[in-house]
Amino acid sequence: MKDDGQILNSGMEYETVELDEEGGSIVIIDQTLLPGKMELIHLRTAQEIWDAIYLLKVRGAPAIGVTAAFGIYLLAKGIDAGDYESFYREFIKQKDYLNSARPTAVNLSWALERMERVCQENKEQGINEIKEALKREAIAIKEEDVWVCRTIGEYGLGLVKPGDGILTHCNAGQLATSKYGTATAPIYLGQEKGYHFRVFADETRPLLQGARLTAYELKAAGVDVTLICDNMSAMVMKNGWIDAVFVGCDRVAWNGDTANKIGTSLVAIAAKRHKIPFYVCAPTSTIDRRTKTGGDIHIEQRPEEEVTSMWYKERMAPEGVKVYNPAFDVTDHDLITAVVTEYGIARAPYEKAFQEIFEKKEKALEAFRENGK
Amino acid sequence: MKDDGQILNSGMEYETVELDEEGGSIVIIDQTLLPGKMELIHLRTAQEIWDAIYLLKVRGAPAIGVTAAFGIYLLAKGIDAGDYESFYREFIKQKDYLNSARPTAVNLSWALERMERVCQENKEQGINEIKEALKREAIAIKEEDVWVCRTIGEYGLGLVKPGDGILTHCNAGQLATSKYGTATAPIYLGQEKGYHFRVFADETRPLLQGARLTAYELKAAGVDVTLICDNMSAMVMKNGWIDAVFVGCDRVAWNGDTANKIGTSLVAIAAKRHKIPFYVCAPTSTIDRRTKTGGDIHIEQRPEEEVTSMWYKERMAPEGVKVYNPAFDVTDHDLITAVVTEYGIARAPYEKAFQEIFEKKEKALEAFRENGK
Repeated sequence: MKDDGQILNSGMEYETVELDEEGGSIVIIDQTLLPGKMELIHLRTAQEIWDAIYLLKVRGAPAIGVTAAFGIYLLAKGIDAGDYESFYREFIKQKDYLNSARPTAVNLSWALERMERVCQENKEQGINEIKEALKREAIAIKEEDVWVCRTIGEYGLGLVKPGDGILTHCNAGQLATSKYGTATAPIYLGQEKGYHFRVFADETRPLLQGARLTAYELKAAGVDVTLICDNMSAMVMKNGWIDAVFVGCDRVAWNGDTANKIGTSLVAIAAKRHKIPFYVCAPTSTIDRRTKTGGDIHIEQRPEEEVTSMWYKERMAPEGVKVYNPAFDVTDHDLITAVVTEYGIARAPYEKAFQEIFEKKEKALEAFRENGK
Repeated sequence: MKDDGQILNSGMEYETVELDEEGGSIVIIDQTLLPGKMELIHLRTAQEIWDAIYLLKVRGAPAIGVTAAFGIYLLAKGIDAGDYESFYREFIKQKDYLNSARPTAVNLSWALERMERVCQENKEQGINEIKEALKREAIAIKEEDVWVCRTIGEYGLGLVKPGDGILTHCNAGQLATSKYGTATAPIYLGQEKGYHFRVFADETRPLLQGARLTAYELKAAGVDVTLICDNMSAMVMKNGWIDAVFVGCDRVAWNGDTANKIGTSLVAIAAKRHKIPFYVCAPTSTIDRRTKTGGDIHIEQRPEEEVTSMWYKERMAPEGVKVYNPAFDVTDHDLITAVVTEYGIARAPYEKAFQEIFEKKEKALEAFRENGK
């Protein structure tokens, strides 16, 4: 077997987001061109970085956070200032601009604020030292993302066996993160170990992230992947082809109810019927203690034309027809076999399991702080 | 309220298949142009009729049967023959030609054979009398189709109440039959009675018959219809918007297992989870005593490009990705609340219920034969 990562690179040649220090740019895969065209683009100016995020050339909360961190580092590096005050003023200006690209993306503001904190904590240092500290922080943000995904993958991999059939929905893949993805992490780690999974990817109407992105990245990585329409999941389960379902999540309520891409709950219901384990891959950052149940999660409604016309040569639904187009749905916790996090696997009752995982995380962070940085 | 049919005609202005005796043509809605364009076309020649069936301008087993019956009548009417033998020879030639348009469509050969029997039974009559008898038979085939659908609608209507939310999958609608459809029949009859149903139509990937046809015909008829993607059914159920599911069927096994458009079983599983009744609307002609269980039903696989590219401006899945594209799935009988036929409502155990319905049908046909034609 090749080393960690090489199989990925041999398939999908580049990472989702990379810092090209020498060239003074961020290199991303332009995801709006997938799956037709695999094109790397270089982001150098504030405008280019902002556009890439706004226009979804880079998408997926973790990948956006990493892009923003690299972006603000590159912009800070270019600031020509003699003192901290004028440097900081310019930094905030650039930060606010980048932050306006997708105001609702939590990881965007989270990453930028983390970078701002580095400025403040190093204000007594020279400008060049601050710039170096910013670079270290941006790289750390990416490395943490890779670590979180890889660790989720390792826990997830323990839940399946070589040759298993795995179904996934939407794209919680490498293209949404720095590497490995969340739901796809067990698949990629299994691929590295020669597990020969047979993966089924739901196309995920209306935005087709499963067809366009998941099928693309898994195929590029040499994974045995089969594309199905969203309405076929029950049939592939009944055919006996699925041993486990792995999905990502947008938010996990404290009782285990999970918001994820529309259609996830339907897959979970079918999995329960067919006695197939259903796993949610969730970085602890998505588990929200303040959200008691799924009923507290606001579900975004999206434009009708995503359903009626956007991908099509011509309208595929009558003019003026009413459309219901929720972006997410909530999967009830009783349908979820386990929630796989970077600090372990949570099983019902979820409140108790999450509490234990959060305590474990807090201890790990404390130990990390004590060891210094 | 308006009379039977007028609301339909006020919305979707024309019937799926009509005989225009005066013009010597069959008038059909060209369904390949829906929903973008509502265009009636006139079929006069054997070639035009064959093309319309072959190219799916008219589709749906009952509608194909009616088109074939009208078609062979019109072609027979045009036969210039002095004696039965030469008339019959030409009739068979035309019949075989029409029958080759879609060799696997049962209703096509069934209708044509029924028309041939009329020739044989009237061979002692004059050619003009045979032509008149053929016309009566073709009209009877259409009227029977309307009666079957309407009667299914009446039984189905007794299962719901005004204001109910109804979900349907694919198109088992008026456009697939002469009138009313099967799964849509309770909806249209309810519409005539002012029931104000709120209907949700699954778009039905990959061929989008729900978006293109069901949403079109219900909207044209003034029904409150909302289009959803196939992966949203569980969510609209959870929202409390659905009181009943009505679907059509392609074949019902003797134990109640039902083959219907891919995705039907997923809807049924979700309905069971949400304690929503799931009804299959089935003309008795689709209930197959020789098929013991759903496991005996062969499932047609369709081309990959239906999933990867056919409706799209550009490919929406990577080149060369594997695709699984079954046209149908089987819904297990334990997920089906009832099977609604033109001879009553069957509930589990289905073998017994179907036996009773078949006996009722046999008695009705006997009474009809005794009353003469």
